[in-house]
Amino acid sequence: MNFGFIRYILGWILNFQGAFLLAPCIVSIIYKEKSGYAFIIASLISFTAGALCTWKKPKNKSFYAKEGFVSVALGWIVLSISGALPFLISGEIPNVFDALFETISGYTTTGATILSDVEAMSKTVLFWRSFTHWIGGMGILVFVLCILPLAGGNNMHLMRAESPGPSVGKLVPRVKSTAMILYGIYTFLTVLECILLLIGGMGAFDAITTSFATAGTGGFGIRNSSMAEYNMFIQNVVAVFMVLFGVNFTIYFLILVRKPKQVFKSEELKAYFGIILVATLVIGFNIRDSFSSIWVALQQAFFQVGTIITTTGFATTDFNLWPTLSKSIIVLLMFIGACAGSTGGGIKVSRIVIAFKNVKNEIASFIHPKSVQIIRLEGKKVGNDVVRSVNTYLVLYAVLFVVSVLCISLENYSFETSFTSVAATLNNIGPGLDGVGPMENFGKFNPFSKVVFMFDMLAGRLELIPMVILFSPCTWKKSK
Amino acid sequence: MNFGFIRYILGWILNFQGAFLLAPCIVSIIYKEKSGYAFIIASLISFTAGALCTWKKPKNKSFYAKEGFVSVALGWIVLSISGALPFLISGEIPNVFDALFETISGYTTTGATILSDVEAMSKTVLFWRSFTHWIGGMGILVFVLCILPLAGGNNMHLMRAESPGPSVGKLVPRVKSTAMILYGIYTFLTVLECILLLIGGMGAFDAITTSFATAGTGGFGIRNSSMAEYNMFIQNVVAVFMVLFGVNFTIYFLILVRKPKQVFKSEELKAYFGIILVATLVIGFNIRDSFSSIWVALQQAFFQVGTIITTTGFATTDFNLWPTLSKSIIVLLMFIGACAGSTGGGIKVSRIVIAFKNVKNEIASFIHPKSVQIIRLEGKKVGNDVVRSVNTYLVLYAVLFVVSVLCISLENYSFETSFTSVAATLNNIGPGLDGVGPMENFGKFNPFSKVVFMFDMLAGRLELIPMVILFSPCTWKKSK
Repeated sequence: MNFGFIRYILGWILNFQGAFLLAPCIVSIIYKEKSGYAFIIASLISFTAGALCTWKKPKNKSFYAKEGFVSVALGWIVLSISGALPFLISGEIPNVFDALFETISGYTTTGATILSDVEAMSKTVLFWRSFTHWIGGMGILVFVLCILPLAGGNNMHLMRAESPGPSVGKLVPRVKSTAMILYGIYTFLTVLECILLLIGGMGAFDAITTSFATAGTGGFGIRNSSMAEYNMFIQNVVAVFMVLFGVNFTIYFLILVRKPKQVFKSEELKAYFGIILVATLVIGFNIRDSFSSIWVALQQAFFQVGTIITTTGFATTDFNLWPTLSKSIIVLLMFIGACAGSTGGGIKVSRIVIAFKNVKNEIASFIHPKSVQIIRLEGKKVGNDVVRSVNTYLVLYAVLFVVSVLCISLENYSFETSFTSVAATLNNIGPGLDGVGPMENFGKFNPFSKVVFMFDMLAGRLELIPMVILFSPCTWKKSK
Repeated sequence: MNFGFIRYILGWILNFQGAFLLAPCIVSIIYKEKSGYAFIIASLISFTAGALCTWKKPKNKSFYAKEGFVSVALGWIVLSISGALPFLISGEIPNVFDALFETISGYTTTGATILSDVEAMSKTVLFWRSFTHWIGGMGILVFVLCILPLAGGNNMHLMRAESPGPSVGKLVPRVKSTAMILYGIYTFLTVLECILLLIGGMGAFDAITTSFATAGTGGFGIRNSSMAEYNMFIQNVVAVFMVLFGVNFTIYFLILVRKPKQVFKSEELKAYFGIILVATLVIGFNIRDSFSSIWVALQQAFFQVGTIITTTGFATTDFNLWPTLSKSIIVLLMFIGACAGSTGGGIKVSRIVIAFKNVKNEIASFIHPKSVQIIRLEGKKVGNDVVRSVNTYLVLYAVLFVVSVLCISLENYSFETSFTSVAATLNNIGPGLDGVGPMENFGKFNPFSKVVFMFDMLAGRLELIPMVILFSPCTWKKSK
């Protein structure tokens, strides 16, 4: 294990964090809130720690997949701890577990909150919560890679460990350029949404924080009623942008470089929009009696389908009260998640497409034992290693899910609460059903459950492997 | 597709069914019940249909895996239809869907019932219900193979398609002898249990039917209160035998041929008993406040753990009222299921062991990319084809599970009811939680849901692939 290099990377994450923490200070000046001082202190702590870690450049430059996974996992933990400091220093979230939960929920773009009254928070703190979504959405290391001059091939290991999806590729030959293109598209779409929300009549503060939360597919609201407060135009803008941020960013790159043919060929994109369409129609007709017209029902269904499949988690209505069919579809969408290479969480559409194709092939080989079956996705052959890693992911996912549900069950909330609270955190969504429904919060759980949720949120955001490798004894054994 | 051969096998299944249907007539004579005539009529119908199908021997003897799967799937459907006739003819279950549900639940050893008052049934019909468990437990085709002189290597395809587990082997070189050994052990254990139950003070009728239901890991009770009616000695005998019938029958064969060393080496057996031990202890301590002493709590916990992991489904207490931790463990055990090569259902312990080992290997290969990882089970190397088929099974299982839950959700029962009713049928257990808890029944569902449950029960018993192949269009396409 190359500890020197890992220390160096963690140091740079802390330096960037120090800079990020200064952004809320501007808000605190505008609104004349005194909580700004908490961010200055936190920023200084981050910079100091970062400076100490980056003082000496690492001598040993050898850096493999193992180091990549460990740095990313540790990086996100360091980010979460330093990001929780202002909540604690300002006293707005005085409990350590709550502050950490809220920060991890922010960075991992989960959007689950322990706050029962969001509106009681200062605007500075609300801005920081939403800003963590934006940083976490595209990934802190992708951001670091945009700017930091890291040597050669190492950085691909970092990008691969942080980016979602079964196989992560580069858009352009250089990792640094790829990271910059991704952040460029991300920023452009965020600004575009913000402008549309302003046109829709939203205040500047609401528009910016909502855009951050949508872009990262996070879901922290700044109102107690989440999105139900706003008019239908604003709800529709948010719904459309949630769906857009759930699309694989490679698609936008293909549009940029004028290759529309490849866009229309994307099977993941077709599956993603297909699922959204079918789910919206079925839920719309299933809930039509609760709304004034079928159109309102469909609009509400589209918003909820979008918010859940992209794992954002904004609420406009309490789907906890919906018929069981709609609730079951919502729970199913929680697991499917968004496209690979998007800011959304969950299992990812492409993994599900690959798993489906693999099963179809295996059944065909039962019927015709001598035929040779190849899996293709987006016109390219899917290697055996990718199929195996998808299967590994799914089994690991199931194991983590089951163990988490058992841990949460210790608290004796209903089975539905235990089950969907884990689904909501492991898939980085936010709300679940029953005790963690859209109108509820996670404040009720005890510290042990909160630690389990924090682990699940981090594991879900980093797609399991980095966190599992960090805690695997095998990683820390000296190699012979 | 070799239709002649499939017809011939189905014919023989019907002939055997004709003979099985005569057994309840003896009960009807003893208890002077008139429902015996229904069984004579059903038996005649079966014999006639069977005779027509087996009149001509098939000319074409070519018989591959595809034909094996199709014959087994169709065989079980034919068995279910002919087995439902006496319920309908006697008028004791007048509804077609209910009669079919009850029969399939019997043969697949699920033990879910549509009856709210079991004690209102005639003893003849009750005997038939329990007898279907016994036939279905070891498998009808394994039975046919004991007796029928089928040509050469074909019959292995039949046995493989019907027997549970990721890889089915022969105990001795000849399939016929293997089938006879399996049925020998099965009969011996059934008789042994019956004798112990008689010693414990059970009536002869109760002892025989209970032994049938335990042997097949079925779970149909003949009392409204299931097993809660009987004394603790009887409950413990049933509990121990449930666990014994959940063991891979190869283990008993190894004991018979005096190879105890191999028995103690069996990883599946160790995992199976390990899970039972841990689950019993955790649940016992979790529910201790509801019972007079910790020992009673542990005894009840052991019974419930045994009944659920072996997918039997007898009830002594309403675990629906237990704390959430115990309920979550019960739900988890539903999915794990018994050992491969036993009469129990579920995913099977050996599949879970293989999936775990595979994930462990894959993670190790992330850390040490150049190392070569081999999976071993019971001291033997597990081939890539087995690992792939386990992964295929798991994904297919998840797909079937999700689709079924969505179908059942149409009825608008609670999410817990929809979720656990599918778990209880797909894993061939019987009871679930909430609306399908141990003190509830499946009579409340509409015909569509019942059809979904019937499919799930058959798919679960035959381990998915035969039913999927039967309904796959690819199977029926003419090969080029």
